[in-house]
Amino acid sequence: MLKTVIVGASGYTGAELTKMVFLHPELELSGLYVSENSVDANKSIGDLHGALKGLVDLPLQPLKDVSAVAKSADVVLLATAHEVSHNIAPTFLSEGCKVFDLSGAFRVQSDSFYTDYYGFEHQYGEWLEKAVYGLAEWNEADIAKADLVAVPGCYPTASQLALKPLLDAGLIDTQQWPVINAVSGVSGAGRKASMTNSFCEVSLHAYGVFTHRHQPEISTHLGCDVIFTPHLGNFKRGILATITAKLAEGVSEAQVTEALEKAYENKTLVRPLGTGQSAKLQSVQNTGFCDIGWSVKGQHVILTSAIDNLLKGAASQAMQCINIRFGFSPLTAIV
Amino acid sequence: MLKTVIVGASGYTGAELTKMVFLHPELELSGLYVSENSVDANKSIGDLHGALKGLVDLPLQPLKDVSAVAKSADVVLLATAHEVSHNIAPTFLSEGCKVFDLSGAFRVQSDSFYTDYYGFEHQYGEWLEKAVYGLAEWNEADIAKADLVAVPGCYPTASQLALKPLLDAGLIDTQQWPVINAVSGVSGAGRKASMTNSFCEVSLHAYGVFTHRHQPEISTHLGCDVIFTPHLGNFKRGILATITAKLAEGVSEAQVTEALEKAYENKTLVRPLGTGQSAKLQSVQNTGFCDIGWSVKGQHVILTSAIDNLLKGAASQAMQCINIRFGFSPLTAIV
Amino acid sequence: MLKTVIVGASGYTGAELTKMVFLHPELELSGLYVSENSVDANKSIGDLHGALKGLVDLPLQPLKDVSAVAKSADVVLLATAHEVSHNIAPTFLSEGCKVFDLSGAFRVQSDSFYTDYYGFEHQYGEWLEKAVYGLAEWNEADIAKADLVAVPGCYPTASQLALKPLLDAGLIDTQQWPVINAVSGVSGAGRKASMTNSFCEVSLHAYGVFTHRHQPEISTHLGCDVIFTPHLGNFKRGILATITAKLAEGVSEAQVTEALEKAYENKTLVRPLGTGQSAKLQSVQNTGFCDIGWSVKGQHVILTSAIDNLLKGAASQAMQCINIRFGFSPLTAIV
Amino acid sequence: MLKTVIVGASGYTGAELTKMVFLHPELELSGLYVSENSVDANKSIGDLHGALKGLVDLPLQPLKDVSAVAKSADVVLLATAHEVSHNIAPTFLSEGCKVFDLSGAFRVQSDSFYTDYYGFEHQYGEWLEKAVYGLAEWNEADIAKADLVAVPGCYPTASQLALKPLLDAGLIDTQQWPVINAVSGVSGAGRKASMTNSFCEVSLHAYGVFTHRHQPEISTHLGCDVIFTPHLGNFKRGILATITAKLAEGVSEAQVTEALEKAYENKTLVRPLGTGQSAKLQSVQNTGFCDIGWSVKGQHVILTSAIDNLLKGAASQAMQCINIRFGFSPLTAIV
Repeated sequence: MLKTVIVGASGYTGAELTKMVFLHPELELSGLYVSENSVDANKSIGDLHGALKGLVDLPLQPLKDVSAVAKSADVVLLATAHEVSHNIAPTFLSEGCKVFDLSGAFRVQSDSFYTDYYGFEHQYGEWLEKAVYGLAEWNEADIAKADLVAVPGCYPTASQLALKPLLDAGLIDTQQWPVINAVSGVSGAGRKASMTNSFCEVSLHAYGVFTHRHQPEISTHLGCDVIFTPHLGNFKRGILATITAKLAEGVSEAQVTEALEKAYENKTLVRPLGTGQSAKLQSVQNTGFCDIGWSVKGQHVILTSAIDNLLKGAASQAMQCINIRFGFSPLTAIV
Repeated sequence: MLKTVIVGASGYTGAELTKMVFLHPELELSGLYVSENSVDANKSIGDLHGALKGLVDLPLQPLKDVSAVAKSADVVLLATAHEVSHNIAPTFLSEGCKVFDLSGAFRVQSDSFYTDYYGFEHQYGEWLEKAVYGLAEWNEADIAKADLVAVPGCYPTASQLALKPLLDAGLIDTQQWPVINAVSGVSGAGRKASMTNSFCEVSLHAYGVFTHRHQPEISTHLGCDVIFTPHLGNFKRGILATITAKLAEGVSEAQVTEALEKAYENKTLVRPLGTGQSAKLQSVQNTGFCDIGWSVKGQHVILTSAIDNLLKGAASQAMQCINIRFGFSPLTAIV
Repeated sequence: MLKTVIVGASGYTGAELTKMVFLHPELELSGLYVSENSVDANKSIGDLHGALKGLVDLPLQPLKDVSAVAKSADVVLLATAHEVSHNIAPTFLSEGCKVFDLSGAFRVQSDSFYTDYYGFEHQYGEWLEKAVYGLAEWNEADIAKADLVAVPGCYPTASQLALKPLLDAGLIDTQQWPVINAVSGVSGAGRKASMTNSFCEVSLHAYGVFTHRHQPEISTHLGCDVIFTPHLGNFKRGILATITAKLAEGVSEAQVTEALEKAYENKTLVRPLGTGQSAKLQSVQNTGFCDIGWSVKGQHVILTSAIDNLLKGAASQAMQCINIRFGFSPLTAIV
Repeated sequence: MLKTVIVGASGYTGAELTKMVFLHPELELSGLYVSENSVDANKSIGDLHGALKGLVDLPLQPLKDVSAVAKSADVVLLATAHEVSHNIAPTFLSEGCKVFDLSGAFRVQSDSFYTDYYGFEHQYGEWLEKAVYGLAEWNEADIAKADLVAVPGCYPTASQLALKPLLDAGLIDTQQWPVINAVSGVSGAGRKASMTNSFCEVSLHAYGVFTHRHQPEISTHLGCDVIFTPHLGNFKRGILATITAKLAEGVSEAQVTEALEKAYENKTLVRPLGTGQSAKLQSVQNTGFCDIGWSVKGQHVILTSAIDNLLKGAASQAMQCINIRFGFSPLTAIV
C-alpha cells in the first residue's frame, strides 16, 4: 500500500480525491492537508463534505512542515492553488514522492506563461521541464515513468480529447482557428463564498473572454491556435465544450469518424458516440468518462465533448495517472 | 406625485421596490440609498441588478444625513437591516414622512422580542406602539391612517394568510399547535456572498429549527402557538408553506372552505384555490399573488400557501400598503 | 380599443401574449383560441398558467370557424404551429385583420425553405412576399405599414441583433463564417410532455447540429453564411448566443463599439453593454431586453447576446411590432 | 457468482440496480428485462442511461417467458410496476429464485390495502404473508432467511428510519399524530414523459394530500398513525422528510439523542447527525446513506431525515438486503 497524502483536501476536487484514494485498494490515505491559515484547518473532512462523513473521518491538518509530511509519503496529490503547488511540489519531489499536481503550476513549459497568466514568476524551471502532462489517454508512456505529473485543467481536457485526434491526423485546416465554446458548472470556481458564485447571481454567461489561461494551455499542447470562450452555467458540475473547426481540403466525414474511433479504441474512459451524436452533460456527471460527438457538413466539423469537471477534468484523471504510473488496473477507484 | 426614497436599494427586495416605484404613476422615485459603508455605494443600481439597466439608472447614494433626506421625501421604503430600520425610522417619521419598513424592527409589540430574537434593545417604544402591521388584506383600516407600517416578513405572510381565516372563525383546535413547514428560495437570505448561499452548497435543508424569529412574529399576530420550521430550497425566489392543524370538534370541510373563500372574497391578490387543491410555487413566482389550497380529512386540515418571497412577502405587499395608505387603486404597480 | 385575439394561447408564448394584451391600454383581449382538437380546449387559461388566474379567466376556445373569428377581430396574434399559421393567416388577412405571426410560416421568402426545413409546401406566395420581418429595431418603417408581420424566431433575434450592426458596417470578414453557439431554456421547446423535456433528462447538450431551421433564417436575413449550433440548457427561459467572427482587415475595437452603440442609440430595448462586457441571462429573463456584450482581440470579435426567448424572442417583440404598427408608445405593455 | 436478473431495468431505479450488480463481485448480471410491450425493448441500457454506456452494454430484453428466465436465475430484482411485481414474483419464487421486489406489491399485509391504495385485488396472500419488509437496519434477522423481500418505498424509508427509534423507545406521545412533510426529487415519479414532470412545469408543491399510499405503509410498519404530506421538489434526486412529533410526558432531549444514536450504533449507512443538526439533501445524494438530525424544545421534537430516493430509498437498500441475505459484506457495491 502506497502512503498517499492529499494537500488542498477541503475543496470540491480534494473531496473527490479523498473518496477515490479511500476506495483504492493499493493506496492508503495517510493524511489530508490544507494550507496553514485555512479556515477549515483541523475540521473533519466529513463536516465540509457531508457525503464523506462516516467513510473518511480524517482531520484537515494545517500543512506546516512540508518536508516532514514528504518524508512519510509515497504519493502526493496537490489540489492546491497554482502558486502553492509551485512552492511545495519541489520539496515533495526532492524527498522522493511521486507528485500529481492538479493546479496549473507545471502544465506549460514556457517562460512567459506563468507571469502572463498566473501572475507569478516560475522558480523551478528544471521541474517544469521534467513534468509530464497528464492527459491520460495520450501520454501513457511518459506518465508511466514520471516523478511529477501535471494533470490538465478541466477545459483543456474536454477540448483536447475532442480535437487532438483530428489535428494529429491532419484533418483540420488550422489557418482558421478552431472555436471552442465551453460551459462549466459552478464547482469549477472552487469552494468559496463569492458574489459571482452566489446562488441567486448564477446564470449562464461568458467570462474571461480572450483572456482565460486555459486558452494557452490548450494551444500549446495541441500545437494549434484556438479561440476559447469559457462560460459559467447554472449547474454544479460538468463541462460541455462545443468545438467548430474547418476541415482540411477534401476531408470526409468518414475520416473524422475513423480518427476519433481509432484514437479511443481501447480507452474505456473516452466514449466516441458516433457521427450525428451530441455529448450530453448528464451522461458524464459523477463519472470519469469523456463523451465525444461530432457532425460534419461541407468543410466544417462540429464536435461536442462532455466531462465531469471535478472527475475527468481533475480527480479521476489524476487517479488514471496514478494507475498508469504504478501499473494498477486502469479503472481502479474510478468505475 | 409623492417623492419616494428607498433605503437599502441594493438588495433583492430593494431592486423590486425600485422597479415598482418607477412604474407607479403617483410616485416619483426621488432617491436610492444604501448604508454609508456599503461596498455598493455610488454604483448605479443597474450595475447590480441588470434587469433595471436602462430603466432606472440612479446611483445608490450612501445615506449620510438622514434628516436632510427625510426633509425632501414624502414616502420612505426601508429595505434595511433590522437594527438600521430601528435607528433611522424615527428620524424619517419626525420629519413627517410616511414610513414603510420591510425589516422586523417594528413588527412585534413586546419588550423581550427584540432582545431575544434580534439581539438589540428596542429604543422606540412609542413608535413600536403606533406601528401598524402591514398584512394588507387584514389591516386595511389601520394601514389607511398609519404613519409607520411594519410590513410582515415573508414566512409570516404565507403562514398567516392561510391560517388566519380558520383561526378567526374558531375552526382550529389550538391546543394542538399547528405545524408550519415552509421552504424559501435563496433570495430570502439576502444579496451577499456566503458559503451557505454558495451555488454548490445549496440543497434542501431545514434551518433555525425552533429558533427562527418568524415563529414569534407568526404566533403573536395569530394569537396562537405554532411550530414553525423554515427550510432553504434550491430555487431563487418563492415560499411554500405547508400547514397541518387539528380542527375543532365537529368542523366540516365545507366550513373550512367557506372561511377561506369568504375571507378573500374581494381580495384580488389572495387566491383561494379550492378544496383538494395545492398551491404551486410557479404560479406565484414573479407575481404579487398568494395562492392557498386546502384539504380536510377526519379531524385534520392541511393548508398550502405560496407566495413570491420578494413580492407578496416583501416589496409588493409594501406597495399594497402604500396604495391603501394614499387611496390609490389597489393593484397599481403590482399587476 | 382594438379587438385582439390570440390563437395558440395555451402555450408559454401564448400566456405571455395574453398577459401583455391584458395590460395594454389600447388593446381589448377579445378571445383566446386553441386548435380544434387541443386537449386544452375549453379550459380556462388560468388553469394552465397559474400566474394568470384571477387576472384573465377567459376560456381557451376551440378555433372552428376562422372567418367568423376574423370578422370580429382587428388584431390577430398567431402563436401556432408553423403549418397552422400558414393555413389560417390568409383568412384573417382577407378579412382585414392585421396579423402578427410568431411561427416560421412567413419569415423567409424562398421556394425551397419551407419544403426543406418545415416539411410542407408553401401555398401563399403572395402573402409570403408581402410579409414584413418583425425584427423590431431594424424594420420599423416596413412594420409601420404591414398587414402581416412575421415575428422572428428566438435564436435569430438574439443572433441578428448582435451581428447585424457589424455586418451592415462592413466590419466582418464574411469569408470565414461566423460561429453562433446558442443555449436556450427548455420553454423554447414548447408546452408539451416529452422525454427530452422531462425534468430528469434535461441537461446541457447540443441538438440540431448543422440542421436547425433557424440557421437559414439567420443567414437569409443577415445575408451572410453562419454556422449555428443550438443547445438545450437546464433553465426554463432565456437564450444566450455567443458569436465568434473574424474582423475585416484593419478593423479596430473602437469601430466595433461604435457600430453597436450607434445602432441602438435610441432603442431602449437593446442594451449594448460595452466592450469587455458579457451578456448575462439573468439580466434579461422576464424582460423585453436584449443585452449585447463584445470583446475584440487581434482579428477576432466575440459577441454575447442574451434575451428572454419567450419575450424579446417571441411575445414582447410581437408587442413591439404592434406598438410600431399602430403608433402606440414603444414600450407599452412591455416595461 | 449468483446469476442475477433485473426486471424493469429501463427506469431510474433499474439503472442504479444495474450499476450495482455490475460492480458487485459476487453477483453476475445475467439479464436485463423490460415488460413485453415496452418502447425500450431491445434497446441497449446505455442508450437510455448514458452513464452506463461502455460499462454495461446489455440489451433490455422483453420479458416473455417468466418461467424460463426464472429457471436460469438465482436472484431477481423487480423494479417493476406494483401490479407487474404482484403478477410475476410468484413464478420466480416457485422456481426457487430469491426475489427482491422494489414495488409496493408485497409491503403491507392487509386485505384492503391493495384494493384501496393500489387499485387491484391481491391474489397471493400466502406470499404476502411470507414476504419480509426490507427496512435493512431493522429487519436483518428476517431478511437473512427470506425468499421474498419487499424493499420499502422511498418516503417510508426516510420516515421510519427517523421515527422508529423514538417510537420503539416509547418517547413519542402517539395520541397526537406525528406530522411528516417530505419533499422528493422528480426521479421519484419514474422515467416517463408527462406534463407534471415536464421541466418547465416542475416547481415545489404538495400532492396526494391525505391520499398517498405511502401513508398506510408508514403507519402500518410503525404501528402509529401519522399525517404524511409528500411534495414534488425541483431537483432530480433525493428526499428530505421533516417530522414534527409530540414527546411523551417528561421525555428529555438526552433521551431522544440516546435512542437515535443507539439504534444506529453499528449501522454505517444511517448517520445520526446529533442534536441541533439538520439533514441536508446534498450530503446523501448519490450515496446509500440516510442522515438524521433532530432538535427538541419543550414537548416537541423535530426530526429531519434525508436519503437518495433512488438509492437508500430503492436500489442501495435492495442491495443491502441482498448482502444480508447471502452473507456478503454489508457495504459491498454500495460504498
